[in-house]
Amino acid sequence: MPFDAPAPHPDPTAGKTEESPAMAKDHLVFFAPSGKRDRFAEGTSVLQAARKLGVDLDSVCGGRGICGRCQVVPTEGANPKLGIRSAADHVSGWNAVEARYVSKRGPLAEGRRLGCQAQICGDLVIDVPPDSQVHRQVVRKRAEVHPIAVDPVVHLHYVEVREPDMHDPASDFRRLQEALAEMHGLEGVHADVAVLKTLQKTLRACDWKVTVALRKGRDIVAIFPGFRDTMHGLAVDIGSTTIAAHLCDLVTGDVVASSGLMNPQIRFGEDLMSRVSYVMMNPGGEVEMTAAVRAALQELAEAVAKEAGVTAGDILEMTFVGNPIMHHLFLGLDPVELGGAPFALTIDGGYELTARDAGLKLAPGAMVYGLPCIAGHVGADTAGVVLSEGPHLRDEVTLLVDVGTNAEIVLGNRHRLLACSSPTGPAFEGAQISSGQRAAPGAIERLRIDPVTLEPRFRVIGADLWSDDAGFAAATAGTGVTGICGSGIIEAVAEMRLAGLLTPDGIVDGTKAALTPRIVPDGRAFAYVIREASEDGPKIAVTQGDIRAIQLAKAALYAGIRLLMDHYGVATVDRITLAGAFGSHIDVRYAMILGLIPDCDLAKVGSAGNAAGTGARIALLNKASRAEIEDVVRRIEKIETALEPAFQEHFVGAMAIPHKSDPFPHLEADLGRVFERGSSPADSRERRRRRA
Amino acid sequence: MPFDAPAPHPDPTAGKTEESPAMAKDHLVFFAPSGKRDRFAEGTSVLQAARKLGVDLDSVCGGRGICGRCQVVPTEGANPKLGIRSAADHVSGWNAVEARYVSKRGPLAEGRRLGCQAQICGDLVIDVPPDSQVHRQVVRKRAEVHPIAVDPVVHLHYVEVREPDMHDPASDFRRLQEALAEMHGLEGVHADVAVLKTLQKTLRACDWKVTVALRKGRDIVAIFPGFRDTMHGLAVDIGSTTIAAHLCDLVTGDVVASSGLMNPQIRFGEDLMSRVSYVMMNPGGEVEMTAAVRAALQELAEAVAKEAGVTAGDILEMTFVGNPIMHHLFLGLDPVELGGAPFALTIDGGYELTARDAGLKLAPGAMVYGLPCIAGHVGADTAGVVLSEGPHLRDEVTLLVDVGTNAEIVLGNRHRLLACSSPTGPAFEGAQISSGQRAAPGAIERLRIDPVTLEPRFRVIGADLWSDDAGFAAATAGTGVTGICGSGIIEAVAEMRLAGLLTPDGIVDGTKAALTPRIVPDGRAFAYVIREASEDGPKIAVTQGDIRAIQLAKAALYAGIRLLMDHYGVATVDRITLAGAFGSHIDVRYAMILGLIPDCDLAKVGSAGNAAGTGARIALLNKASRAEIEDVVRRIEKIETALEPAFQEHFVGAMAIPHKSDPFPHLEADLGRVFERGSSPADSRERRRRRA
Repeated sequence: MPFDAPAPHPDPTAGKTEESPAMAKDHLVFFAPSGKRDRFAEGTSVLQAARKLGVDLDSVCGGRGICGRCQVVPTEGANPKLGIRSAADHVSGWNAVEARYVSKRGPLAEGRRLGCQAQICGDLVIDVPPDSQVHRQVVRKRAEVHPIAVDPVVHLHYVEVREPDMHDPASDFRRLQEALAEMHGLEGVHADVAVLKTLQKTLRACDWKVTVALRKGRDIVAIFPGFRDTMHGLAVDIGSTTIAAHLCDLVTGDVVASSGLMNPQIRFGEDLMSRVSYVMMNPGGEVEMTAAVRAALQELAEAVAKEAGVTAGDILEMTFVGNPIMHHLFLGLDPVELGGAPFALTIDGGYELTARDAGLKLAPGAMVYGLPCIAGHVGADTAGVVLSEGPHLRDEVTLLVDVGTNAEIVLGNRHRLLACSSPTGPAFEGAQISSGQRAAPGAIERLRIDPVTLEPRFRVIGADLWSDDAGFAAATAGTGVTGICGSGIIEAVAEMRLAGLLTPDGIVDGTKAALTPRIVPDGRAFAYVIREASEDGPKIAVTQGDIRAIQLAKAALYAGIRLLMDHYGVATVDRITLAGAFGSHIDVRYAMILGLIPDCDLAKVGSAGNAAGTGARIALLNKASRAEIEDVVRRIEKIETALEPAFQEHFVGAMAIPHKSDPFPHLEADLGRVFERGSSPADSRERRRRRA
Repeated sequence: MPFDAPAPHPDPTAGKTEESPAMAKDHLVFFAPSGKRDRFAEGTSVLQAARKLGVDLDSVCGGRGICGRCQVVPTEGANPKLGIRSAADHVSGWNAVEARYVSKRGPLAEGRRLGCQAQICGDLVIDVPPDSQVHRQVVRKRAEVHPIAVDPVVHLHYVEVREPDMHDPASDFRRLQEALAEMHGLEGVHADVAVLKTLQKTLRACDWKVTVALRKGRDIVAIFPGFRDTMHGLAVDIGSTTIAAHLCDLVTGDVVASSGLMNPQIRFGEDLMSRVSYVMMNPGGEVEMTAAVRAALQELAEAVAKEAGVTAGDILEMTFVGNPIMHHLFLGLDPVELGGAPFALTIDGGYELTARDAGLKLAPGAMVYGLPCIAGHVGADTAGVVLSEGPHLRDEVTLLVDVGTNAEIVLGNRHRLLACSSPTGPAFEGAQISSGQRAAPGAIERLRIDPVTLEPRFRVIGADLWSDDAGFAAATAGTGVTGICGSGIIEAVAEMRLAGLLTPDGIVDGTKAALTPRIVPDGRAFAYVIREASEDGPKIAVTQGDIRAIQLAKAALYAGIRLLMDHYGVATVDRITLAGAFGSHIDVRYAMILGLIPDCDLAKVGSAGNAAGTGARIALLNKASRAEIEDVVRRIEKIETALEPAFQEHFVGAMAIPHKSDPFPHLEADLGRVFERGSSPADSRERRRRRA
């Protein structure tokens, strides 16, 4: 990199730093890649110079040569005008502190120096390698999402504290404050009383040398004996069914341990509304449910900490997402108002409280941050999906769908975002389906029907073979074939439609019983038998009732999506992302065949996995993302499906398979066939209007 | 008050308010007594005008005509140039809101209007009566101390909150925030989760009208249904022996209920050092002691609240003082380091924590503020004495003495303050005295010895008669005469000295046994018998050991005082104030005769009562006083007696009665006699120097 030396003092204020009065010898220093530059007095350390200029150069130990975070490469001081060709004589020599560091921690990479030890002796270009920058980046697996810059709310600062002295009554805490001010420029630091309780013993245990974990440059989270350069945080997704926790390394951004637990609130009610009912029937019941979810979270925190070789007391910060009822119950807020119109949240914004007030034993000053809720039915989990997927950062109109008992839907781009919740019911989770079950080993998750023989083949969770592969029975011997999960029932219904076993209106075609023994009478309708009862498991069939349940669920989902598209004023979307466990298991083509989602270029339809949890992790790793998601959520326009007559109309139109209202050119091109279709609700309106 | 009308627009920015574009008709308004003035558009309410100018005009209801706090007197609009003589046509007429207010709350005083209803229709002078100002003043009983301006950290704000709406997902809390912003200009208000728990039920219980208690304009302390204009706070003095709590009306500043309890920590150790020893011997013992003092405080809070007809949940703020060990134990901080050199405090500054974290159930968002500690031996109680007595506000050099097990001493004026703690031991509290007891009914608190007959007469706590008055036996029948308390022993020793029964060196003069049967042999020394054992109580005498204990205590106290005077560079002080229970009971002349305190104009020597508790009350009532005392405490110079050789010298010199080192011209003038005196330590030094 050429040393593009500006004229001396290109900026009239340059060189007038406290360290370099006009008389002193000073040198031009240029930092790469930031491009920041200024003149500094002879003998200024590279770290001091970087701090003065606001260059992103890390340091935990405050320039004591202990942490090794401030490594830099003084590349060259070449300046043709001055005849300088090398950095060698423009930077102070290797010193004893660096020698001590290398003897303890191993050699530095070629050309590197400790920025706190290397002093400026002439004009220099200083390269700051990526691993010496505070704001590292975590590149995510999926190409379409943006990387996360690691810049958590908590930072570590090593200090050496003055010992107490009879002549000076300054308390231990005041001397700690002084050390933070002197070594790190941190003024007016505050400590919670729980942190103060640990102060005196920690200081005395390690010869007055401690590492302080500081939140937002202001509040002490924990005080560790001696030097320390690792820190951890916890990102949590509180689902109605399961709670998932990810322990993250707050330095690298990596997930170092993950674990999940059933939400113990299930004993108060399987689904959200039954839990709200429990509180209505049992005043104070929210206290029990709050205690249950907090105890489970504590257990998870301890489990993931143990897995990573640390303790829950090392967890310095926690973030969480959850639907509004889970969010409120975790915070200890009564969810009863969320059980009925107008579904008033107690609080909607991003919310911070101490881990102690959240009933958790983490680091003594640890805080918990909950992402904002969007509306009474669209919670912090959806905010997490938005933060993870970033529709507000794109020009493309993105559709985000998170399917659970309700489906949360977000539509829009950088200019405008809309959100709603659609009452899909639990059919997509395998509930209310005759052979339905949760997505667990033994459940059918993939299913194909031969269009000629009308015979099914399928795969179950926990086995890689298809049911017509040799060895399938052996491969599933441990689990059996126990039922059909959400993605399985969707494929089954879609395949029945593709095989001609289902009319567009969703009637199982009894006339097909003549072609296959698998179509059997079932009450006043017909069913399709996938598997007879055997030693391996029960009879598994798709009944007319199952088809109806799926029709209702998918019509509700699609109606919600169309409602948002109407409000947004678009007939198509540029990108579709399915979030959540259901979104991870489903084959998006089948979702489209069934009409869960609108037509879209299939290359732009994908699954985001647990995007809500990823949102919690982003909020944990990057402090700026909190203000970002709070701002985005405030600007999201919420559409209440129950108040929109168009929702009912779209719902009716979306009952058919595929639904009647919209064309599916991408899907039909992909499948190589055109669906027969009925009349759309718009057509019906038109007809009614003409009749009138 | 004449309307001293300035020329139109004396200030170029005046009149350019948002409400009054250049075109609109505007009027000059002058507020008394603040003198603030500006021009306002026709129709502006007086309250709006006052707020715009920052005039101190109260309002709880935000201008709804409910609270009546904004009463003003529009006195006159007279302006000779304009020919205006009366306010009548310069202010809008009496309106329906005022009529409603008067019908509910009774008539307003002559000439008064509600400032939120009276609108400006012409030039006006507005008198703001003292009771309409936010910052009322509490005048204190003692003339020498400054009044307290009532300006607590908590204020009440009445709001009417928009109901929830299916079309708008704003949470209850967001709509409350909006109402606070719209009606009171309060932006970005925060609520603790404990406050949020109460929000939804409170809003729905009272038709969405609530009064919010807000701390520092930022944090919600409590939400009360409907309109409310009373608020309470608690000021607490945590003594080693007793805990005293004062419930204060935060509007008027009055103490509305007081109560005290024995400090239950006494079961862990009678004095401070034995409690620290308990923790040393029983690790974790601080947790028990913290729990004990907090439980006692909760009991007290509930007792005083009940006495005032409110609940502990109505207590919006608490302040406390205490010596360093009590201060730390209440906060839950291990006091072990305070038990030995270098006596390192964990924390010294003013400290705030939630009542919840302090183990107290007060208002859901109540905070607790602890005054700063000065040093490891000079605590927040002494800071309270300083705040109450205000030596930092005077030119006079003031000596403050707070006598307990240790004596805390503060010396100085507005330019400089010094402090130390002197190890007096518990003799002044009646401990280590043969007939000693606590200051309780039955204890001798006053004693005189007839210089001729050498007979004693005395008074006991709980009776107004002297022992030689008729009816004394009847008056003390309930209590008996059980012992001698701190002030009693001081008077006894001083009177023995005045009566010639004691040499200047403190020897009970056995030769006086020839003159009175009350001088009796007692081991190898003599004692003075005040009272023989009887049905009313035990034998009460002053022994040689008692004299020695008092000599040691008073020498320690005086040596500490002299040490500060030396450091300050003064030979006399201008004012002496004795704080604490001991200071309240003692006759200051006897304190001076005995040589507890230096000579001073007796008119300027007085008792401040429980000045530490008063300091807590000031910090409760006046928010600015917190920064004031924190700043003063930071500037106080702490002298460590143990490190000062001069302390020992002063101590030796102060053993005599009165001590030998200093003259007592004021005292001798008052008594009309001159004490014989020995040589001072300074003289001894001089002699030693000459011999050498």
